Amino acid sequence: MKNFTFFSPTYFVFGKDEENSAGKYVKRFGGSKVLIHYGGGSVVRSGLLDRVKASLTANDIAFVELGGVLPNPRSGLVYQGIELCRKENVDFVLAVGGGSTIDSAKAIAAGVVYEGDFWDFYMGKPVTKALPVGTILTIAAAGSEGSPDSVITKEEGMLKRGASGEAYRPVFSILNPALTQTLPAYQTACGVTDIMAHLFERYFTNTQDVEVTDRVIEALLMTMINEAPKVIENPDDYQARANIMWAGMLAHNNCCGVGREQDWSSHDMEHELSALYDCAHGAGLAVVFPAWMEYTMQHDVMRFAQLANRVWGCAMDFQHPERTAKAGIQAFRSFLKSIGMPQTLTELGGKEEDIPYLAHTAAYGNEGNGCLGRFVELKEEDIANIYRLML
Amino acid sequence: MKNFTFFSPTYFVFGKDEENSAGKYVKRFGGSKVLIHYGGGSVVRSGLLDRVKASLTANDIAFVELGGVLPNPRSGLVYQGIELCRKENVDFVLAVGGGSTIDSAKAIAAGVVYEGDFWDFYMGKPVTKALPVGTILTIAAAGSEGSPDSVITKEEGMLKRGASGEAYRPVFSILNPALTQTLPAYQTACGVTDIMAHLFERYFTNTQDVEVTDRVIEALLMTMINEAPKVIENPDDYQARANIMWAGMLAHNNCCGVGREQDWSSHDMEHELSALYDCAHGAGLAVVFPAWMEYTMQHDVMRFAQLANRVWGCAMDFQHPERTAKAGIQAFRSFLKSIGMPQTLTELGGKEEDIPYLAHTAAYGNEGNGCLGRFVELKEEDIANIYRLML
Repeated sequence: MKNFTFFSPTYFVFGKDEENSAGKYVKRFGGSKVLIHYGGGSVVRSGLLDRVKASLTANDIAFVELGGVLPNPRSGLVYQGIELCRKENVDFVLAVGGGSTIDSAKAIAAGVVYEGDFWDFYMGKPVTKALPVGTILTIAAAGSEGSPDSVITKEEGMLKRGASGEAYRPVFSILNPALTQTLPAYQTACGVTDIMAHLFERYFTNTQDVEVTDRVIEALLMTMINEAPKVIENPDDYQARANIMWAGMLAHNNCCGVGREQDWSSHDMEHELSALYDCAHGAGLAVVFPAWMEYTMQHDVMRFAQLANRVWGCAMDFQHPERTAKAGIQAFRSFLKSIGMPQTLTELGGKEEDIPYLAHTAAYGNEGNGCLGRFVELKEEDIANIYRLML
Repeated sequence: MKNFTFFSPTYFVFGKDEENSAGKYVKRFGGSKVLIHYGGGSVVRSGLLDRVKASLTANDIAFVELGGVLPNPRSGLVYQGIELCRKENVDFVLAVGGGSTIDSAKAIAAGVVYEGDFWDFYMGKPVTKALPVGTILTIAAAGSEGSPDSVITKEEGMLKRGASGEAYRPVFSILNPALTQTLPAYQTACGVTDIMAHLFERYFTNTQDVEVTDRVIEALLMTMINEAPKVIENPDDYQARANIMWAGMLAHNNCCGVGREQDWSSHDMEHELSALYDCAHGAGLAVVFPAWMEYTMQHDVMRFAQLANRVWGCAMDFQHPERTAKAGIQAFRSFLKSIGMPQTLTELGGKEEDIPYLAHTAAYGNEGNGCLGRFVELKEEDIANIYRLML
């Protein structure tokens, strides 16, 4: 295990009806004038926005609002939000929505108190200061409610990039599983895939002797495998929603990723897909991750076999561990199919002729060093090969 | 899953040599005059205390010191610490040691800023205010480095009681697994048992549909089962120490206990043993917990069978689940024996004739309602029966 620091100071409020305490928590964490940031109409139609406003008003907290966050949230709205916050002297950003809304809220919160262009943070500058952000989560997926991360897409060139920093940890997050019950099955499944991907990015490591984090990652994966089919079958299964929602937070606040090298090349490859085809992040990951696993399996067959045996219940073939390893990847594919996720690049709207562009942008887009990943270092050619496995 | 809040704002600094950053973190969290609180001579002899002092001095932080914390820390030293802190205008308490030292430091920190008798907190008053506490952990066991809890023994009557409150969460905790390498095997094993007991107290619940926390608890238990024999065999196994140390924190900061009823009757029964016989807490738990399991097994055979199958690897007997359940308890007993833990009350210095007193004090000592536990509600007679199973 490597040396690490871990700091997750978010106050989590979990359970039924807790969105009605939003005002209480904004007050506790020092907010007096709030930007309510949200996405589309469902937050309005469901009455959630009204309940949140009522809770703020009951606590004498003023607010302005900015809706319209899209999946793969755009820099344009972030600039609007920054301007609005400055004009209205906002001192607290409250995100009501999923990962996209929270990520957009974080970008606004950092931009308001920064003199330069907020995009600097998405080109590698660490986020050290931001307005406090609170969240009311409506989809279990991105884990942004407990993470120090945010991903934004810049319209020019559709560049999708991430930023990170302790100032991006929400001061509070309200997680009411019932709010996720109205999600369509496809979006629910995308969320499930995203959560599992966050776990796999941490699981595949070259760091040795990390039994505790291995075991916790496996525990969260087994939770997803057990609970996801229940919500696909019955969207109103509150208890299964609750298990998924808490697992989604634990999967990405990094309590199970500490002290070990992490990979993250699949996320980078997916970012190119959702930037170019505007597909759902989870759907993109469902296509990328099994292909990445097949391509990298030989690097550490025993780690793949461990996953297959412990998580997917595949019998260990002691004479041919690679058979067990492969069975695990196949079990993952079958699981993704069973919850309605796409299997191929074509289903995402991708085309073979885009692959050279995708591979080049993935390899050189952000950092520009031509490589992705840590478990296996992937060069542009490897990345192209992996994209081809998705056809 | 039940509604819950979860707040674990401790800054964890994990790894080799990190005790040398103590001064940096005291400064970051606002300390300028520190009470260094510690136990016996090993902290002095090993040079740890000198390294900590050097780090404080290098950061221009003044300090006073108070050693002498005993296992099952006493109220007498807490009163001394409070007086010293007031006299010296201390604004930060730094615990260098194990759970006893940290618990004593927490009590001092709360007592300094409280006008009444600090013991009020241990009679049920919630802790809402305290000086900031930092910790440098030297034994993986109590989990006090990440918990909002403290247990103190009052000399008059040897009453051992707990207090709790968010103000008791350390602002930072430094966890260097190498510091635990000098521990005798017996103390290491006591720590392992304590960590496992924290997990069992949460595992045995009547709350339904708690897959995510069930799985995480099981993950941490399997970590202990895998890693503990390594450190018993080779005390210098840094990696195994590291896995145990992080598992010990996760086992008790409550990330795996949220949203579910917890039991805690075994801890209450053990507290009577260590108060009366002054045995190590972990050794007491090694005797209490298997007996408690045998006594309560019939209440939920399938939960015991799940534990036996998933954690201990016992084959599921689908026709006779109680056989699987019992095999799990037997596996736990064998494990405890293998790491050198006692099996009986007699080995702890206990006597059959003390049982009526122990049972009565356990049932009526603190809260006075005559009952212990939530998984199964135990009355005085049940408690006596369980103590008898330990003979």
